[in-house]
Formats: sequence, C-alpha cells, structure tokens
Amino acid sequence: MSITEMSAAELTALRDDAKKQYEDFKAQGLKLDMSRGKPCTAQLDMCSDILDILNSSSSFKDSDGTDVRNYGFLTGISEAKKLFADLLGVKPSMVIVGGNSSLTLMYDSVARAMQFGVYGSEKPWNKYDKIKFLCPVPGYDRHFGITETFGVEMINVPMSPTGPDMDMVEKLVSSDETIKGIWCVPMYSNPDGYTYSDETVKRFAALKPAAKDFRIFWDNAYCVHHLTDTPDSLLNIFDEAEKCGNINMIYEFASTSKITFPGAGVSVLVASENNVAQISKLLGMQNISYDKVNQLRHVRYFGDADGVRAHMEKHKAILAPKFKLVTETLARELGDDWGVTWNKPNGGYFVSVNTMSGCAKEVVRLCKEGGVVLTGAGATFPYKADPEDKNIRLSPSYPTLEELEKAMELFCISVKLATAEKLLAK
Amino acid sequence: MSITEMSAAELTALRDDAKKQYEDFKAQGLKLDMSRGKPCTAQLDMCSDILDILNSSSSFKDSDGTDVRNYGFLTGISEAKKLFADLLGVKPSMVIVGGNSSLTLMYDSVARAMQFGVYGSEKPWNKYDKIKFLCPVPGYDRHFGITETFGVEMINVPMSPTGPDMDMVEKLVSSDETIKGIWCVPMYSNPDGYTYSDETVKRFAALKPAAKDFRIFWDNAYCVHHLTDTPDSLLNIFDEAEKCGNINMIYEFASTSKITFPGAGVSVLVASENNVAQISKLLGMQNISYDKVNQLRHVRYFGDADGVRAHMEKHKAILAPKFKLVTETLARELGDDWGVTWNKPNGGYFVSVNTMSGCAKEVVRLCKEGGVVLTGAGATFPYKADPEDKNIRLSPSYPTLEELEKAMELFCISVKLATAEKLLAK
Repeated sequence: MSITEMSAAELTALRDDAKKQYEDFKAQGLKLDMSRGKPCTAQLDMCSDILDILNSSSSFKDSDGTDVRNYGFLTGISEAKKLFADLLGVKPSMVIVGGNSSLTLMYDSVARAMQFGVYGSEKPWNKYDKIKFLCPVPGYDRHFGITETFGVEMINVPMSPTGPDMDMVEKLVSSDETIKGIWCVPMYSNPDGYTYSDETVKRFAALKPAAKDFRIFWDNAYCVHHLTDTPDSLLNIFDEAEKCGNINMIYEFASTSKITFPGAGVSVLVASENNVAQISKLLGMQNISYDKVNQLRHVRYFGDADGVRAHMEKHKAILAPKFKLVTETLARELGDDWGVTWNKPNGGYFVSVNTMSGCAKEVVRLCKEGGVVLTGAGATFPYKADPEDKNIRLSPSYPTLEELEKAMELFCISVKLATAEKLLAK
Repeated sequence: MSITEMSAAELTALRDDAKKQYEDFKAQGLKLDMSRGKPCTAQLDMCSDILDILNSSSSFKDSDGTDVRNYGFLTGISEAKKLFADLLGVKPSMVIVGGNSSLTLMYDSVARAMQFGVYGSEKPWNKYDKIKFLCPVPGYDRHFGITETFGVEMINVPMSPTGPDMDMVEKLVSSDETIKGIWCVPMYSNPDGYTYSDETVKRFAALKPAAKDFRIFWDNAYCVHHLTDTPDSLLNIFDEAEKCGNINMIYEFASTSKITFPGAGVSVLVASENNVAQISKLLGMQNISYDKVNQLRHVRYFGDADGVRAHMEKHKAILAPKFKLVTETLARELGDDWGVTWNKPNGGYFVSVNTMSGCAKEVVRLCKEGGVVLTGAGATFPYKADPEDKNIRLSPSYPTLEELEKAMELFCISVKLATAEKLLAK
C-alpha cells in the first residue's frame, strides 16, 4: 500500500518501526563517506601500472620529436590531442590538452570570459550589470559553484530523461542577451544519469541565442563511463552545430579523472579553431605548458581511443555491481510505496533519488547521524536551494560492496522514517 | 682603445672587419635557440630517475594516510608543504603546493585579485578605473605579460646590484592608492642575476603602502640555483615583514621547474595564513586538487630540503661552465672597448648584457639572421619597450658548450658590427 493512502495509526506503526531500526543501526557506529563521486581503491589499483610506462630509461620524445620534460607546447602534445580527438569525434586542432583538472578548464573559461570575453564578444562579461546562466536541475554542484562565485545569476531549467526542457532553453536563450551560457552534462548526467536525446542535442546545436557570445558548457565527463552492455549513445554536438553555423557556440570538457587517477589525470577542452585561438592567446599568459610528461604517459598507456574504451570495461566490472546493489535495494525496500523515485543509469557515477517533497534534508541529516555522509541535500541545485527539498545524490563508487550494503540499509530506513514523520506532522 | 674615441677611419676598418666575420659566420648556417631559460637535455636526463620513484608497486599513501591518486587536498599534501616550507624558511601552513607552473600561480593570483580582490581589499582591483604595478627593469617578460593582459599600468623602476631603487619604490607605494603590486625576482634576478641586499629586503618588508591591499609578488624562482661555491644569500622577507606587521603584504612563488622538469615539476605559493585562507576559498571553486602523485614523487625523490640543495650541485656542474664561457667570451672579445656592460651572476639562468644605447634591437636582428635566436630586444621591459634599446638577455643553459661557443662568437661579432654602424651613422 502506498504510504499516502495509510491511516494515521498505520503510519505511526511504520514510523515507530523505522525509528527502532534507525536507532539499532546507529548503535553500530558506522563511518562512511558517500558524498562525492570518488573512484574506489580497487579502481585506482587497477590503473596504477600507468606509472610504469615512463621511467628513467624511457624515450621522452613525443611523435613530433619534442622532449616532453621541457618547456613549451602550450596546448598539448600532438598524440594526446589525437587520442582525445578520436575519443570525442573531433579534429585534433580543436583540442587543448590541459592539466589534471577539467574543473580548472571550466573555471578558467568562465574567468576569461568574465575578464576578457570569448571569441565574438562585444565586451567582457564583467562589463554587463548582470549576466545569467541556465542551469539544468538537478545538476553538478561544482558547476553552480563557479557561476555563483563570479556573481552570475543562475536560472533553473528542469531536466527530463531526454535532457533539459528545450522549449524553455530556446525561449530564454533567444530572448535575453544577458544569458551567456548553460551548464550541461549531456551523457549520464550528474546526478540523474540521463543522456540527452538526439533531438535535444540537435536543438542545442540549432540554438539562436540573443547573445552573440553565448556558450554551451558541454561537460562530457562520463563519455566512456558505461555501466551496462547496452550503453547510451550521445550525438556529436560539434557535427550538428557545424550544420547550423554554430560551431563557435560550444566548449566541450572531458578528463581522465575517472579513467586513470582523479588527482593525476589529464583534462581536455574542445572548441572550434576560432575559440582555441582566442583561448590559447590568453592561456599563453597563464602557462608555458601543462604537464606533458603525464600527457605522454597517458597516450603510451592507452595507445589509442579503443585502448581507453577497453580500459573502461575494467571500471565497469568494479562499478556495475555497486549500482545494481543500490537500485535493487531501493526497489526492494522502498518500491512504489514511499513516494520515492530514482533512475537506473546506464553509466556515470550517481543515482539520483527524489523523495517525497520536503524530506531530502531530513534524510541526509538522519544518514549523517547514523554514520553515512551523503552529498548535502540541495547541492544539486544552484545556490544549494532545492525548491522542493526532494533530490538526493547517491555516489556508490567509493565504498566497498559490504559498506554500500550497510549504507543503503541506513538510507532506506532514513527515507521511511523521514517520510512517515513528514506525513504525520501534516 | 674604446670605440668612442676612434676616428671615422678606424671605426670603418673595424666595421668592415666585423662585417666580413659576420658574413663568414652566416655562411655556416647555424640554427640555435637561446631565447628562453630552458634547461638542457643533460639537466633533464640527470633528473629522470625521479620517474622511477613511483610505480605500480609503490605505496600511494602520504604521511597523513591519504591516497594521493584520488581527489582532494586542495592545497597540497603535508610532506610537500613541509619540504617547501623548510626550503623557503616558512611555516607549512603558509604553503600552497600547486601544479606544474608557478607562472599559473602568479597569473591566477592577479586574476583573482582583479575579479575578487585580495585579503583586505575594499573592492576587487577591477573596480578601479586604473591600477598600477611597479616593475623593476630590466625584468621578466612573462611577469609584464600578465599585468599587461589585465590592463594594469606598469611603471618602470630601475634595478641596481642591490635591487630595485627603493627610494622610488617607497615614494610611489606610499603615495598612490592605485599602486597595487610590484614584480620582484629577489634572488639572481631575471635577467641581471642580482640578489637583493639585506637592506633592500628590509625596506620592502617595511613598506607603508597607501593601498591596504598592496602585494609584493616575490618570485623566488632561483632560490637554490647557485652557479658558484660562494653563492649569494637572500634575507627571509616573511621574517622581516612579520616584525613590521606586514606579513599579509607578500605572495612568494617558487617551483621545481628548473630543479626537476620544466614541464612536469611542482610549484608553490607562500603567503600568510590570512592570505592562504582567502586564496583557498576561491581555489576550491577552480580545482579539487593539484597533481598529488607528482607532489609525492618529488618529496620521495628529494627526501628533504637538503636533498634539493644537494641535487642543485649537479645542475651547477652542468651550468657553471656555460656561464663561464659566456662571461669570459664577453670579456675577451668586447672587454671595456665596446661600451658594453654585463653582470657575472652567482646563480640564476641569465646573463644580462647592456650594449651602447640604440644597439640592442640591431644586435638581436643580426644574431637571428646569423642563426641564433635571442630573447627579443625590449622583452625585459614592460610593453616590450626598452627606452634606451640597450638590454639583451642571454640564456646560456640550453645549448651545448660547443653550440654556445659558436653562439657567443656570433653575438660578439654582432655587437661590434651594430655598434660600429651606429657610431658611423652619427
């Protein structure tokens, strides 16, 4: 029976039962952190032979004959550009290979735009009284953190299984010259795990922004991060944008943070040649080169784009059972009865759970007191403000299966307790 | 005899002789790049065993038990902070360990100040109609490039063997609230190779800026880069500033770019704890962590600060003969007769040559046509404008001794030819 159809007495019984389970659980003194999408130790160990690739007897010349240990080659070594170009279906001339963080490439892209403008800007974004970004919600808290830091006004756009509400995106973008960008995680979106449909990608590529310097921040963080044998596929937005004369409208980002090491991978920014030229000029003031030794290490480790894809099968073998455990536990413990919904993603790093309205904060609080730290409720929304207080991002990657089983037990108990309390308080 | 005392006939003879030597040299078809302070292959090879330090069988836990391969620890791992703190004579809590580029730390520091202000700012630097930086000249072109990019007005301050003209610095800084910073390379300055005297450091530490948010950008790039057994020493500016209540006034920068690898080293920003707190908050929006694997690799390679100092002896063994060749060739070929002066540095990466006024551009042009690319004339001044057109930065590190001998031969011929032509044209 659905919890909403229950009598007060039935609800009270359920609440008391959940309360007892919760107190019993708390007594176990668990300490677990599920707040971020961190790879687990097994995933790191599985990649650590990448550090054997370059040693003192290696050749340090790249395919152009450049010694990667020395200064220079600001936008990356040729074979790293080629590897990422092949992986993302773009031309090597569109690739800037960065350091260990695509977040840095994104922040820096916003920072440059604020201070100097982007290719085609009439003036720096700082010179407007106010600029705005569209933010599909729920979304990635670090994206929202960047725009909030720069004082950019953020406008929520609802997500659906096919991507953001494109009617709303088209309407806003075409009518307001101060809307300068949109944050997108187009494949296995953070946190929902949705992949934008072909139609959504085509509508993005065909946008007619009022702002000549509008940019789609296309954070393709999970482009090869599949969890099933029937993965999603994402249309190549650059191919579509080229057809619409919109090739300059897109900044794409990716990294090997969840392919090799989160702290010591390689990131990429992909953009039109005009964008790359404008960015490189400013980048040359900030840097002489990113870490080309690490770029060469990565290229020699993978060989080519197929090498990356093959390597991702090993991540899948570790991660898929964890995601299965999460979604199966949710189905078994909560099912249809507790007003809770979630997606079963084919890839990415998260399971996004929507509780009954007004329960998310309390569930996260209960979990924390019970010994499991989740991503803060609200974090998946700009300004950390979830208008319905219902979205919770679960990150199953880091704990072991045994830890995850305990954590999910606590999570489901907490949902039951918070939901019953909420209904009883009405 | 000094060239300025010669008759036109004597000058013409010298000019013709130099011209012939120049044409003979040009016919050899040399191709050499001495434009940047790049370590040579022998220096890189000598350090490459650093890549053997971490491999798939290593422990990846730092001294705090953190797995350096994963996310987190924004300001660096504890043992890397300690290593640099010991090396620079500061507290570990004052150290942010960065990525592969101290230039990036400097650019980012200016960028943050422009957009958000620094600790103690009343408003972001962008909110002034115009802000200014003092620029000791000759200086480092990439410093000037950063401030030029951000539209900061740059004011030349003359350098001397004891450091910048401190009367001028004190007068300007104390009287103009829009002077927000000064670029300093206090040890083995780029390009002169001067080390600031104790008095200069004390006067810097005791500055009373009109701007509450004035910052000294103390680029200690060559802090352990000695070329002789009687190296210079530099007073610790933080110790002095603390005595004057000025601890927040300094941002110090350093890196291992010229200790291990220029492209794959580790950089540091050192500042007061108030500054570190203000910077870290914004840095946390830009990055999750720098490359901690590379930080651990460096710490395990060197062990401690003495390990770094011992390692620098090996660089000295490679570099000192090159600097000796440069200064000896200048003395032998040009001596006192050609109106040319230079410093014989005890460390660093450059020999700064001052020709007779109005000759530097022509010397650099002649060298380039003869097959040797030097740093562009004027590059050592803001806006690339050397008011006397006389300073040339020589970078002896990259060529082999044999190449350097040829390059210096061409350089001296070019100086003679340009100087004689200049005098004859009067």
